[in-house]
Amino acid sequence: MLTEGFSYELLATRGRARAGILHTPRGDILTPVFMPVGTVGTVKAMAPSELQAAPIDAKIILGNTYHLYLRPGLEVIADHGGLHGFARWDRPILTDSGGFQVFSLAQNNKVDEEGVTFRSHIDGSSHRLTPEVSMEIQGVLGSDIAMVFDQCPAADCSDAEHLAAMKRTTAWAQRCARVERPAGQSLFGIVQGGLSVEHRLRHRDQLLEIGFDGYALGGLSVGEAPSEMYRILDAVAHQLPAERPRYLMGVGTPEDLLRGVHSGIDMFDCVMPTRNARSGTLFTSEGKVQIRNAKYRRDLGPLDPECPCYTCTTFTRSYLRHLFKAGELLFSRLATLHNLSYYARLMRSLRNAILEDRELPGL
Amino acid sequence: MLTEGFSYELLATRGRARAGILHTPRGDILTPVFMPVGTVGTVKAMAPSELQAAPIDAKIILGNTYHLYLRPGLEVIADHGGLHGFARWDRPILTDSGGFQVFSLAQNNKVDEEGVTFRSHIDGSSHRLTPEVSMEIQGVLGSDIAMVFDQCPAADCSDAEHLAAMKRTTAWAQRCARVERPAGQSLFGIVQGGLSVEHRLRHRDQLLEIGFDGYALGGLSVGEAPSEMYRILDAVAHQLPAERPRYLMGVGTPEDLLRGVHSGIDMFDCVMPTRNARSGTLFTSEGKVQIRNAKYRRDLGPLDPECPCYTCTTFTRSYLRHLFKAGELLFSRLATLHNLSYYARLMRSLRNAILEDRELPGL
Repeated sequence: MLTEGFSYELLATRGRARAGILHTPRGDILTPVFMPVGTVGTVKAMAPSELQAAPIDAKIILGNTYHLYLRPGLEVIADHGGLHGFARWDRPILTDSGGFQVFSLAQNNKVDEEGVTFRSHIDGSSHRLTPEVSMEIQGVLGSDIAMVFDQCPAADCSDAEHLAAMKRTTAWAQRCARVERPAGQSLFGIVQGGLSVEHRLRHRDQLLEIGFDGYALGGLSVGEAPSEMYRILDAVAHQLPAERPRYLMGVGTPEDLLRGVHSGIDMFDCVMPTRNARSGTLFTSEGKVQIRNAKYRRDLGPLDPECPCYTCTTFTRSYLRHLFKAGELLFSRLATLHNLSYYARLMRSLRNAILEDRELPGL
Repeated sequence: MLTEGFSYELLATRGRARAGILHTPRGDILTPVFMPVGTVGTVKAMAPSELQAAPIDAKIILGNTYHLYLRPGLEVIADHGGLHGFARWDRPILTDSGGFQVFSLAQNNKVDEEGVTFRSHIDGSSHRLTPEVSMEIQGVLGSDIAMVFDQCPAADCSDAEHLAAMKRTTAWAQRCARVERPAGQSLFGIVQGGLSVEHRLRHRDQLLEIGFDGYALGGLSVGEAPSEMYRILDAVAHQLPAERPRYLMGVGTPEDLLRGVHSGIDMFDCVMPTRNARSGTLFTSEGKVQIRNAKYRRDLGPLDPECPCYTCTTFTRSYLRHLFKAGELLFSRLATLHNLSYYARLMRSLRNAILEDRELPGL
């Protein structure tokens, strides 16, 4: 039961790494792709016009169901005809299901077979999410890619807990798949199973039986060592269906993206480039720059000499450090613009290497 | 002793209101003009590219000597060849002298005939500003218009205190005028005298004897009633030299700008549009909008239907309210962009009315 107008076109491979195009009714997404996170209807500090302009040129962004449901609330977004109209973003949007947030952010969450009851982290008000409610919310948001409502257990939980979470996630995924979606909205399944390859493959099989437009790996980068995540990626990613997009949720560092692409992943999202930007950690071709460091006080060079973004082509490291130290709003803008440019350029360089059958840069 | 390359060209008058061009070696400034305030080398939340694009199209911005001297410090700015290079602003800059800030912001300030000793509001370190030091700092900043170091007494101080401040400001102005400035840097005198027309005119005469490139009215909008300021403006502004630009410092509301232009003022600066933007007070053709108000929660209209700025042509009031309530950085950007657009468009509408000999809009 695949969604009409939604398909993955594989263009080239290099080892297990893939370059392709995700076709959606709202436009094509060149993969591998990094999706900037727009938690409450805005990628923090960025205007839509900047995200769509080179060198970021984001083809898709992510919105958070949990956050948007709590604030501004569904009726406000429905007034705008959905999240695209609300945030004035006319390219594809992926929404998570709220599952991860109700377990990580909300207070007093209580899970049962039907769903999760929790209290808002904003005002303590009581709410309940079920697979059906999550799909209904994502329907109002009108995202182009919806995610199934899943239970994401802690990395260090017991085997029995992992098995229970897998079983529940499968049952919830079935219920999500039965909910009618708006025209053109695709639905991805989420493979759980912790750090066990066996669990992961078994859960994959359960989801394949239901059938989804794409498959995500959830429950990674939740506290385990990077080497553990890489082990799972190397063993599992290429065993997800080749004809469907593969999405590694909530990951990660530039190194993580490289390893993910190498293992066969097509899609990533993470708050790292935007959050790190605001706290002064900047990714450059010369490594990480902690802009607060005294050594940049009189550094007249660009933040990253290889980066074509407005920040790097306009200002000095000295000026950026000054803005950071003075707590100026312009810093968050310029830093976010740069970090997202760095991530976008990294993904394009990986894509081009695959298309041209070259060694992946950085490996 | 006028500065080469710096002149005021009067194009038209309507009553006492004037439209003209301030010619500077770094470019022309169309007057009347509002100058956005860039306290520490950035107009808060704005990129230089946005300030220079329509509809703001700022021809000049202001920098604060006191703030920049404390942070990042002069050697950092000198490294960049001055404030233009540091902030990447290639149009004219006006710097204040630091006088107002050492009296209003700094701690433990002690004034004597030579200058002012004070403690930094940032780290409590001890500093001393004199007319000569202020001019030296403004020389390093490399502004296109420097201001004399003055003493700005409180609005409600005694007549004797006003007279003493005037006398001191005149002596300091003489000392400022004797300091050699960078090529192309002009110098404005500041007329004090509180709310007495007689004092104002007497102080004007003292400054005229020294001779400056322009004349400012200082010590207004410091706590007195608007009607008191308007009384001074109506009596004094048109008695400043007609062949020189007239600058009303630190003012003000849209109504203040209208009254100022009406009385013959050419230049204004104020943090009001930028500061109010960040706290959610927006100026529109339909009056002030407090965007936090519940009535905007589901308001799908533009912030200001008559405004061509990115904020107003892209987003709904409902979305802007959501950003404000969620404390999102994008709000400060969009709100500042709009308020500065509003001020710029107001000044252009006044200028056009004068050039076309029409009634000033809003009077």
